[in-house]
Amino acid sequence: MIDLYTWQTPNGEKPVLMLEECGLDYRLRMIDISAGEQKTPDFLAINPNGKIPALVDDEGGQGHTVFESGAILVYLAEKTGKFLPAAGPARHETLQWTFFQVGGTGPMLGQWHHFDAAAPERIPYAVERYRKESLRLLGVLDDRLKDREWLAGDYSIADIINFGWVRSGLSGLKDAGARDLSALMAWTERVGSRPAVKRAIEKLDVAKRDKSG
Amino acid sequence: MIDLYTWQTPNGEKPVLMLEECGLDYRLRMIDISAGEQKTPDFLAINPNGKIPALVDDEGGQGHTVFESGAILVYLAEKTGKFLPAAGPARHETLQWTFFQVGGTGPMLGQWHHFDAAAPERIPYAVERYRKESLRLLGVLDDRLKDREWLAGDYSIADIINFGWVRSGLSGLKDAGARDLSALMAWTERVGSRPAVKRAIEKLDVAKRDKSG
Repeated sequence: MIDLYTWQTPNGEKPVLMLEECGLDYRLRMIDISAGEQKTPDFLAINPNGKIPALVDDEGGQGHTVFESGAILVYLAEKTGKFLPAAGPARHETLQWTFFQVGGTGPMLGQWHHFDAAAPERIPYAVERYRKESLRLLGVLDDRLKDREWLAGDYSIADIINFGWVRSGLSGLKDAGARDLSALMAWTERVGSRPAVKRAIEKLDVAKRDKSG
Repeated sequence: MIDLYTWQTPNGEKPVLMLEECGLDYRLRMIDISAGEQKTPDFLAINPNGKIPALVDDEGGQGHTVFESGAILVYLAEKTGKFLPAAGPARHETLQWTFFQVGGTGPMLGQWHHFDAAAPERIPYAVERYRKESLRLLGVLDDRLKDREWLAGDYSIADIINFGWVRSGLSGLKDAGARDLSALMAWTERVGSRPAVKRAIEKLDVAKRDKSG
């Protein structure tokens, strides 16, 4: 059985999408980051970086832990043989757009969100820095999707990992209006309409409500 | 033959270290980011995200392009069978600490560097935000290295990818003094004393000087 330690955030969603797409059995272990549960000794023993998501797979009788959402998706893809080609250019194209998310849209939209909505003071320079870079990165994805259905060949972990932050960015940055992002919007609807993706979002929503009481 | 488009930065160094460690033939194609060469149409045709490094491998007669430093390291590891175990927990542990760099120390130290040294105005909140988070992340690496020589099993792409930003962080943040980072410092010396790493740093240095004239 797989235990997934997570919360309802763009990063926390990623492995839930993947587990549903792969049809694997798993338990959701909700780690309430608004209550700081990701910094408790119990959770730090699973992920010393104190961040969700993290996964423990007891296949073979030994609890095998993987943290970092990118590593979790590659782990599940290689476990199941799904959503990441085993070799060839398509494999490395998929990994390339996966890393693009982890090093690009993830941290930049995360910083934009912090300075736009969470920071204790309004710092126009920082808000604008991350708004601009986030829009630029979404524009790169939009260009990529102008003549294709998915980011790299067939639907893959590249699409799964990019979905949450893109959806959040398109929603938060929508009035920025500096850029046509229609190809990216259409892709977001394609991903979001997949039954596995709908199930993942719904399960996470229910689990969060159950946990929050 | 492999063409590597890069520059002398912590991200630009990573694939040079890997190519030297693997003993592969390659040409350094220096992209002077201080002159904006990463935003020229020629380079955007290689990496639409306008960032170094990017690699073009003409093995098999077709130019195969990979960008994103993490994807490049995995590509070269899988091409050569080196520095990334083919299967098992050690593989996913290596990938986990690789993604940790791409999503963690890379962007956070990058933002710290921006607000500490490059931003047009001094914003104490932002400097402190990224200094603190960078130190926390370096502390996670230090804890990891307290009882082991390398980040994940044998020397691997996890060490190769983490080296440049850690070295830069230890150098820039050294007077912060809030945290004992001796295990991480010792690891940095271990990586830095490897012949391939020394060759990589030297070659990049020479190539930058040649290019800058």
